[in-house]
Amino acid sequence: MVKSALSVLLVLVAISSTFAAKYIPKSGKRVPQTLSRGWGDQLIWAQTYEEGLYWSRSKNKPLLVIFHLEDCPHSQALKKVFSEDNEVQKVLDEDFIVLNLVYETTDKHLSPDGQYVPRLLFVDPSMTVRADITGRYANRMYAYEPSDIKLLVGNMQKAKKLLKSEL
Amino acid sequence: MVKSALSVLLVLVAISSTFAAKYIPKSGKRVPQTLSRGWGDQLIWAQTYEEGLYWSRSKNKPLLVIFHLEDCPHSQALKKVFSEDNEVQKVLDEDFIVLNLVYETTDKHLSPDGQYVPRLLFVDPSMTVRADITGRYANRMYAYEPSDIKLLVGNMQKAKKLLKSEL
Repeated sequence: MVKSALSVLLVLVAISSTFAAKYIPKSGKRVPQTLSRGWGDQLIWAQTYEEGLYWSRSKNKPLLVIFHLEDCPHSQALKKVFSEDNEVQKVLDEDFIVLNLVYETTDKHLSPDGQYVPRLLFVDPSMTVRADITGRYANRMYAYEPSDIKLLVGNMQKAKKLLKSEL
Repeated sequence: MVKSALSVLLVLVAISSTFAAKYIPKSGKRVPQTLSRGWGDQLIWAQTYEEGLYWSRSKNKPLLVIFHLEDCPHSQALKKVFSEDNEVQKVLDEDFIVLNLVYETTDKHLSPDGQYVPRLLFVDPSMTVRADITGRYANRMYAYEPSDIKLLVGNMQKAKKLLKSEL
């Protein structure tokens, strides 16, 4: 009886060490955060502005920086249209470096008319923020609404005309 | 006949618009990047150093910054042990702000003895980089190997003793 209890115990120990429970927070299991944050799972996202600038310069492609907040309904609405628009996604994937941020950087050039979300800015590979490429709202020049997606596509074409062409 | 062909066409159009193909890169479908990059899917990762500092100050918790590269075997080996160590994961989740970076920041304080990977630095909520908390290698003071995980746990305890206690 003692012997069989021991065997059961050994088996239990073996099982528990083989299937060692991975850490799970007290508040419950979390879904891993993605770098895309829903703006396009198939795109390759830079993590930081420095990284975005580096890739923009080295690949000679314009950078698109999206400032947004996960619990902002305007950001969410734009994100849905943006992520589901195949033209936007294809052009960004092939011709742009992309970065989305939920936290402001220290670079004032990225907030030409204030810090608000959603706010989309293009940066030329020469490291010039394209403050000239704007949406349709005079008070928030870099904001876009879901219905502005064609305007955004047009602005992407503008951003692709680089400020300094290669020699 | 024409009528039935039309109905079939209508059904096809309806199906194709309902199941509109999502954008897939020419090179094939990609697995979405995670912010954890494999260092702990259950942890809540800051995306940028600025964000990490902000959370560190506002929550009065030390920040751990991990510099690594995805195709560096030393980084990979440490990551495996680090992500599977429940004590490391639990303490980080409850008492730290965490950030992993594959690209250097412009802040020289984060490279007290050079830029190499893997490199782990603690930052106090007072925004002081804890250059005093080191691993076992004199030439790369902030490097850890998989066998150093207990040393790292000890260093986490040191980092939890904040430089300035709250009033």
